[in-house]
Amino acid sequence: MNIINRAASILLLLVFFLAFFQDSVHGRPLLLSMSRPKPDAAALFARWLVSQSSWGVLNTIASDMGGAPFGSLILKYFLLCRNVVSFSDGLPDKGRGIPYFYLTTLDPTARNALKDQRSSFTISEYAIGTCGKKDPENPSCAKITLVGMLKVVTGDPKETSFAQTALFTKHPEMEGWPKSHDFQIYKLEIEEIFMINWFGGPKPLTVDQYLQAKMDSHTVIA
Amino acid sequence: MNIINRAASILLLLVFFLAFFQDSVHGRPLLLSMSRPKPDAAALFARWLVSQSSWGVLNTIASDMGGAPFGSLILKYFLLCRNVVSFSDGLPDKGRGIPYFYLTTLDPTARNALKDQRSSFTISEYAIGTCGKKDPENPSCAKITLVGMLKVVTGDPKETSFAQTALFTKHPEMEGWPKSHDFQIYKLEIEEIFMINWFGGPKPLTVDQYLQAKMDSHTVIA
Repeated sequence: MNIINRAASILLLLVFFLAFFQDSVHGRPLLLSMSRPKPDAAALFARWLVSQSSWGVLNTIASDMGGAPFGSLILKYFLLCRNVVSFSDGLPDKGRGIPYFYLTTLDPTARNALKDQRSSFTISEYAIGTCGKKDPENPSCAKITLVGMLKVVTGDPKETSFAQTALFTKHPEMEGWPKSHDFQIYKLEIEEIFMINWFGGPKPLTVDQYLQAKMDSHTVIA
Repeated sequence: MNIINRAASILLLLVFFLAFFQDSVHGRPLLLSMSRPKPDAAALFARWLVSQSSWGVLNTIASDMGGAPFGSLILKYFLLCRNVVSFSDGLPDKGRGIPYFYLTTLDPTARNALKDQRSSFTISEYAIGTCGKKDPENPSCAKITLVGMLKVVTGDPKETSFAQTALFTKHPEMEGWPKSHDFQIYKLEIEEIFMINWFGGPKPLTVDQYLQAKMDSHTVIA
C-alpha cells in the first residue's frame, strides 16, 4: 500500500507540474492572474486585454510617404509600416492602459514615428490563450486596435522609470539588447479605440472610459 | 514489483498524454508536423511560417479614403482598416503559399477590399509557439508581411474547392458561420514579401522564389 501511495503522490505532483508548465508554453510569462471581464464591460475588458497581452502589430506611416497622396507608393507604404513588436502597459495586474514599446531606429517603425507620430496598434486575444476553442476570427475572441500618436518617452523621469520597469519585467530579454542599437522607450498616446469582443460590431468606448477603468475593483483569481 | 511496473506505465502514459495535450492548448489545431527550416533558407522558411500559422493582422484601405490625400482622415483610416483574421494556404503540410480568407461584408475589411484591393497581411511566428523563450520582438522570432491584392475567389471551381477545404480544415468553426452573413472566400495575390527571421534586417525574397519553394523536399518530423 505504501508503494501505491507513493506512486499516487508522484502522479499528483506530475499532474500539477505539467498543468503549471502548460501555462508557460511558448515562452509566455505567467501573467494571467486576472479573470476575463464580461464582454459588456467594454472599458474593463479592453484594459484587461491590453494588460494581459505582450505583443501586437504596430503600424506607422513610412516617412517617404510624408503627406503625399495615395498612389503607386502605397505598396512601399504597406511594406515599411507594419511590425510585430512587444509592449507593456505596466507590471502584471498594475497596467495603466498606455502601451510602452522599446524600439530601435535601426528598424523603420521607430524612424517613421520620429517623423510622423500617427500610429495604430492591433492586439488579438487569441495570442494570450483565453479564447478556448473559438476561432481567432470569431467576434467573441476579442481584438483591439488602439489609434493615436507614437512618441518617445523623455523628460518625465517618473514615467521613464515606470515604463522601463513595465517593459523589462514583461520582457526580461530587453534589458540585454545591444546598447549600440539606440533602443528608446516609446508610448502610444491613444486617441481612438476600436474593440470587437462580441457579435454585433465594435464596442462603443471612449479613451477616457478606457483610461479611467478601475482594474482594482476587478476580481483577481490567482 | 508488479505494482511499481503498473504505476510506471501509468506515469509514462500520462506524460505522453499531457505532452500531446500541451500542443493543442488554446484551441490551436495540431499542425506543427514540419520542422522549422534554417533562417537562411528564406523562401522555405517563409512558406513554412505561412503554412503553420492560422491567423494574422489583415490591412485594407478604408473606402472613404478613396484616393484622397493623407490628412485628418488618417485616424479614421487607421481605425477601419486593420483586422485580426483567420486564414489558410492549404491542408497541413500541403500549403501552396497563397493565403485564403473567409470574410463577410458585415466587416469593413471585406467591404474595403471590394472597392480597393491593395492590402497587406502580417503574421508572427510567436503565435505558433516555435520561438522558445525568445521575445516576440527578437528578430530571430520571425515575422512576415505579405503585400498584394485582396480578391474574391470566384470563377475557378478547382481553386474555390481547394481554398474551401484549406479554410474549413484549419478552421472547422467556419463551416457553421451564418449563411445570411454573406461570407465569401478571398485570397491575397502576393506582390511583395517582407520577412525578418534573423538579425540584420529583412531577408531578400522574391514572390517567385516564395511560391516555387518545394515543401516536399523538407524534413517532416511527425
